[in-house]
Amino acid sequence: MPTPPVFLPPTSYDYCTVQRVAGTQATEASDVVAAEEPLEIRLGYGPAGQREHRTLAITMRTPGHDMELAAGFLLTEGIIHSRAALAGIRYCPDVTKDEERENVVRAELAETVAVALPRLERHFYTSSSCGVCGKTSIDAVHAASCPVLPTDGPYVEAAIIHELPERQRAAQALFEQTGGLHAAALFSPTGELLLLREDVGRHNALDKVIGAALLHEWLPLHNVVLLVSGRASFELVQKAAVAGIPVLAAVGAPSSLAVRAAHDFGMTLLGFVRQQRYNIYCGAWRIRV
Amino acid sequence: MPTPPVFLPPTSYDYCTVQRVAGTQATEASDVVAAEEPLEIRLGYGPAGQREHRTLAITMRTPGHDMELAAGFLLTEGIIHSRAALAGIRYCPDVTKDEERENVVRAELAETVAVALPRLERHFYTSSSCGVCGKTSIDAVHAASCPVLPTDGPYVEAAIIHELPERQRAAQALFEQTGGLHAAALFSPTGELLLLREDVGRHNALDKVIGAALLHEWLPLHNVVLLVSGRASFELVQKAAVAGIPVLAAVGAPSSLAVRAAHDFGMTLLGFVRQQRYNIYCGAWRIRV
Repeated sequence: MPTPPVFLPPTSYDYCTVQRVAGTQATEASDVVAAEEPLEIRLGYGPAGQREHRTLAITMRTPGHDMELAAGFLLTEGIIHSRAALAGIRYCPDVTKDEERENVVRAELAETVAVALPRLERHFYTSSSCGVCGKTSIDAVHAASCPVLPTDGPYVEAAIIHELPERQRAAQALFEQTGGLHAAALFSPTGELLLLREDVGRHNALDKVIGAALLHEWLPLHNVVLLVSGRASFELVQKAAVAGIPVLAAVGAPSSLAVRAAHDFGMTLLGFVRQQRYNIYCGAWRIRV
Repeated sequence: MPTPPVFLPPTSYDYCTVQRVAGTQATEASDVVAAEEPLEIRLGYGPAGQREHRTLAITMRTPGHDMELAAGFLLTEGIIHSRAALAGIRYCPDVTKDEERENVVRAELAETVAVALPRLERHFYTSSSCGVCGKTSIDAVHAASCPVLPTDGPYVEAAIIHELPERQRAAQALFEQTGGLHAAALFSPTGELLLLREDVGRHNALDKVIGAALLHEWLPLHNVVLLVSGRASFELVQKAAVAGIPVLAAVGAPSSLAVRAAHDFGMTLLGFVRQQRYNIYCGAWRIRV
């Protein structure tokens, strides 16, 4: 797996003037903030001559790696299951307003791909915090077909894990400037950084990573460790499982459902990975102490 | 405005066994993690005799204050605009499975309330990170009717702001145990803690706060400072604006769109509120330095 360079598009940050308050003194200064813009994901599907197009989702994201984000979203939300299902993906050519041109991505599914519209339509309105879009219960989530994670590894030396947050942080170009971005990064089992993506949304950062892997045909990601900069929620565990990721390490805390889901998927879940310490919540057999 | 006690329901956390790794040593220990469970919000609407019921959203949340969460969600997502629009809200009596009983809330709208179904249905599938559900552009967001924020205050002494994170943290009972929860808290302009809610999702924590205010008929919240434990995204600014909150302070960084939206709403936005420092991104006139 090659290491694509960290790429910082000029649209991924913004300048603004702030009043910096220290104690009771304020001074004017220039500041850099992480960009946040809506990305609309449009979907084309159906046989030739009867193609349909509709808006699938709008997500608030940091511009950059938009095709990866859209592709990763389609995969981790269960719309597609392989690279082959995607006939094409690009900024929508139908958008005429200049300022929206790079905020609309159109994904064209292969003609043979069936879209489970009833499942998608079941919940016509989904919360911003929703992790189980279109699924009515935990049972439904567990019943969803998820790739099986490898049961013969990978094995990771306990000490390698301690190194990952610093390596991730060093590669987070945009975070250094703005202090305001989540990151998701893939590492080899020996701790080599393979791929890193940043976003104001932690789900987006992971979707960008998984989308990049999908577009490069690296899936399933059976031989990697995923590090996320924030907390481990159920949804992050679920997205990682869909991509076949066997080890998920979080700088923050996991939730109860994240632990339960990781256990059920056979995933290794680490939390509070910082300052030479971490907790192993499940799948401890992959970590060599 | 009275100060409700911080309430920790037993369903809001969970115990699990972990391997604690320090250096290369692992020891088994018992740990507490923040609970995360799906909450389904069902909506009843229409005139008597023609009532319709449908699932509006599923959100992954920390159990507790579920009616507040659902009510706040309905308000900040624009389904209702006042307490009077809500005829009733409770755990859905139609749920028969014991384990799901407290994961489904049914909100009954008053008969006279019109539901903008076309707007809700426009995007039948919305990202977990979506901040502009049902809205196709920033223009649409700006065109949405938002309460006007007060233009004659409140005024807050610069030094008061420095105290808020510590006061919030001291009141975060569940965070102390789990290290894994976001908080949103309302303070008076003189720094008195009025209300605090915790959740694995930061949007949920804010919706719980706003829902509590709605149910107690405290809206609009024109005389408060809102502190959020994480970053300030566009959506948090938007939700705060709907509730009439004039000052939003975030422990973390704001995004570009959060700054732009706060500016347009006439809101005071503070970021990086920690260690006796913070940045004022807009509305500096309300902060007295």
